[in-house]
Amino acid sequence: MMNMKTTEELTKQLNDLERSLYVFHHLSSLVELDATTAAPQDTTVGRSAVMEYLSNENYKAFASEETGELLNALISDKAELSVREARQAEVLKRDYDQMKAIPQEEYVAYDVLISEAQNAWVKAKRENDFASFAPYLEKIVESQLRFVDYRDPQHLRKPYDVLLEDYEYGLTTEFLDAFFDELKKTIVPLVHQISERSWQPRSDFLHQEASIEKQRELSDFLMKVLTIDRNHCSIGETEHPFTLEFNKDDVRITTHYHLAEVMSSFYSVMHEGGHALYELHTGEDLRFTSLASGASSSIHESISRFFENIIGRSREFCGFILPKMKELFPQQFADVSTEEFYQAMNIAQPSLIRTEADELTYSLHVMVRYELEKGLISGYIAVKDLPRLWDEKMQEYLGIEVPSDTRGVLQDSHWGSGYFGYFPTYALGNAYGAQMHERMKQDVDTAGCCERGDLAPVVSWLEEKVFRYGRMMDPVPLFEQYCGAKFTPEPYCRYLKEKYSNIYGL
Amino acid sequence: MMNMKTTEELTKQLNDLERSLYVFHHLSSLVELDATTAAPQDTTVGRSAVMEYLSNENYKAFASEETGELLNALISDKAELSVREARQAEVLKRDYDQMKAIPQEEYVAYDVLISEAQNAWVKAKRENDFASFAPYLEKIVESQLRFVDYRDPQHLRKPYDVLLEDYEYGLTTEFLDAFFDELKKTIVPLVHQISERSWQPRSDFLHQEASIEKQRELSDFLMKVLTIDRNHCSIGETEHPFTLEFNKDDVRITTHYHLAEVMSSFYSVMHEGGHALYELHTGEDLRFTSLASGASSSIHESISRFFENIIGRSREFCGFILPKMKELFPQQFADVSTEEFYQAMNIAQPSLIRTEADELTYSLHVMVRYELEKGLISGYIAVKDLPRLWDEKMQEYLGIEVPSDTRGVLQDSHWGSGYFGYFPTYALGNAYGAQMHERMKQDVDTAGCCERGDLAPVVSWLEEKVFRYGRMMDPVPLFEQYCGAKFTPEPYCRYLKEKYSNIYGL
Repeated sequence: MMNMKTTEELTKQLNDLERSLYVFHHLSSLVELDATTAAPQDTTVGRSAVMEYLSNENYKAFASEETGELLNALISDKAELSVREARQAEVLKRDYDQMKAIPQEEYVAYDVLISEAQNAWVKAKRENDFASFAPYLEKIVESQLRFVDYRDPQHLRKPYDVLLEDYEYGLTTEFLDAFFDELKKTIVPLVHQISERSWQPRSDFLHQEASIEKQRELSDFLMKVLTIDRNHCSIGETEHPFTLEFNKDDVRITTHYHLAEVMSSFYSVMHEGGHALYELHTGEDLRFTSLASGASSSIHESISRFFENIIGRSREFCGFILPKMKELFPQQFADVSTEEFYQAMNIAQPSLIRTEADELTYSLHVMVRYELEKGLISGYIAVKDLPRLWDEKMQEYLGIEVPSDTRGVLQDSHWGSGYFGYFPTYALGNAYGAQMHERMKQDVDTAGCCERGDLAPVVSWLEEKVFRYGRMMDPVPLFEQYCGAKFTPEPYCRYLKEKYSNIYGL
Repeated sequence: MMNMKTTEELTKQLNDLERSLYVFHHLSSLVELDATTAAPQDTTVGRSAVMEYLSNENYKAFASEETGELLNALISDKAELSVREARQAEVLKRDYDQMKAIPQEEYVAYDVLISEAQNAWVKAKRENDFASFAPYLEKIVESQLRFVDYRDPQHLRKPYDVLLEDYEYGLTTEFLDAFFDELKKTIVPLVHQISERSWQPRSDFLHQEASIEKQRELSDFLMKVLTIDRNHCSIGETEHPFTLEFNKDDVRITTHYHLAEVMSSFYSVMHEGGHALYELHTGEDLRFTSLASGASSSIHESISRFFENIIGRSREFCGFILPKMKELFPQQFADVSTEEFYQAMNIAQPSLIRTEADELTYSLHVMVRYELEKGLISGYIAVKDLPRLWDEKMQEYLGIEVPSDTRGVLQDSHWGSGYFGYFPTYALGNAYGAQMHERMKQDVDTAGCCERGDLAPVVSWLEEKVFRYGRMMDPVPLFEQYCGAKFTPEPYCRYLKEKYSNIYGL
């Protein structure tokens, strides 16, 4: 078919499309944000009506014949487009193909289902009642399987691979199986050695009551240290911390304050703050386009986990933070030395909750989820068996008893949001971050930055090498560009081995 | 033109229209709620893009030829419709005519202007900088005048009357002038007598520091006393308290805690709680229709001001509340007697801030605004002269100096939101409430209810007589139905005279 429109007309149309996609993104995010932060409990009816409308309008605007023609025309006109426009067309075409594959009615019904399932998950977790959540989860899995069929009707790929791609373009089960095998080889022996050593740093000062007001002050301090502009990034409070970006000038993070776990919100602010920094520093010219976000979930997590752990749990950063802790919580921290603080921040010990896990055992939590969701999507695990299998796998990987589904299979919101394939990106992000840090150290004295609490040089490096690209490049080529090498889990394994051997004198 | 559609087709179309209007209402409210509660400061760009989109879509969906034809067809088919459907058609036709009169481009530009002006007002108030807000206000007034021209091209009515109707169907300047004259005759002499009496109740205990945490507990207690179901109504915190309703199952109120003004949030919760009760109890069958809200602003304010003052400042309710105050704030309230508490709650004294004003001087604050906005809309007052005229009128009506625009002309958000014609409904609401209370007392022992802190019978009466009707009836006939008489300011004037003569021994 002849393309009858001028390039100018096409790019104008592209801008209009991007603008309306931005509006849907903004509004759906707002509905979600409200549901998790401000809305009273029994208010799903109105919200479902709204989600249904938004989903329908979004589908109509994006998965239309007109959009298909526009994107094809842009792609065949590629030579006339700017680099950014060409990439917009490429990325949008991928997203378009995925949405278009699903019939509108099913697409909308799924969005409504998710909105209700999130609510059901909150209640089920609160009441330790997996059975009340199971019907929602079953419907979500069924929908996902149907969507996989639509997207890959000839079954050229594993169903789980189709879903992985939603979070990481090009990621496969094969790659992840090998990656996790490699991690296991490093982590499992280290965990055993530490357990045999039967010594743990003192940590009494971490579990004393610490005023919530002072914890809020600590968050304000950390936001400053992270160089985050509060005029463009707020910090709220929710049960489950998260980051939500409207656009590069409007990012929200949340945290949760636990009276007797002062470091819990500390590390959630470092983590979500990392996500926020990424969004706040995507390229100015990408604003309001589909490129104005992170390159992938793994790259995003590599940044958040980098700030949380590689920076936040480093000896140097602990040294910088301790005086602030003594100032805010004198009773609790008066007699704590830098070495004691550093060691306590890095206690490696099997535990129940992923988001609170130490760096070493963290990936084991991810493996539990990886294997379960792979099983769910491949059809050899049923939703009703999840609690039992969860407990078994926690026993197998971490050697601990799960006392309740609330602190077990119900702890994370991901599955109730339909995120199958997201969890592995946390582990991959950890490994990406370690290799990135090796490269970064050639340019930036990161230890010195941590010691001085001056993270600006770190953020600048990241802005130049990673953040500003947004979704301009796919994750693998972007990673290889800023690391100057192909990805390998080795730097991460080396980092873990050195750090924990040192702390535990192995 | 022949109506070719069946009644069934028409009502189906009506429901679809109502559903999409609900969605726009929900989404615009959400954007507004977010802007005032959670959004970081410098985030207007994304929000304006979204408001522009919503405004455009709303206009397209509602002010279309199709809607016009639908409404005309429904109205001519009236005999076939249910009472509710007929009223929907009537009310929607009024709203339709008003929107349709304004060209789409101007309508949308105005919505965007308002979204920006609200932000400008917040900043101007914070920085006591009227000049930075004036250009927005000028544009708003210009737009309003243009809209009045569109709506009443033959200038059959006063421009201000056209705007009054947005809040109170049938309200006129003529009526208000007479009403305020009547009020003045009662209030001004009382204020003078009190000032000559030169005695005031003790009130030291009201201005001592009171822990914000405990103030929050007090709010929780009040919400319970008001019989508000927290699963359907949340209470948040904002600079300027407000009520926002999504639907009868999802209402939000906000308050503001002042460390050394414990009663400030107390009365804002009583006030906004009254608004919330109205919305929570509109008829089940009105849900998601344009009838699912209050009959008018005055009726709404008559309820909120009734709970705030007639209930909340009654001797009996003060008696019920005092033990709770002593429990939460023992230091401040230990030596306070019921009579002292009651008197302190009712100190009549000229003051700067409308929302904090006592019942007696409150209407004088409204008169200041009424005269200024009438002048603005009639063209004999210019925006730039507002601060000076404000200060002069405050001197004239209340005999006090205005120390800053922040505590003067900038104190209220209304004008920056384009609400010209709203303020008078507060005073009218006060008077409506007093007459309603006289009627209510024939059925309900309101004094006993207050004494026991059991407001359920009061709420039930209101639900049956007022709330459930939503917008099914226009304010005047509704008022006359539940009061069994025409409105007159007398009961209100009598109430004020008795109450203040008694307290001040006049």
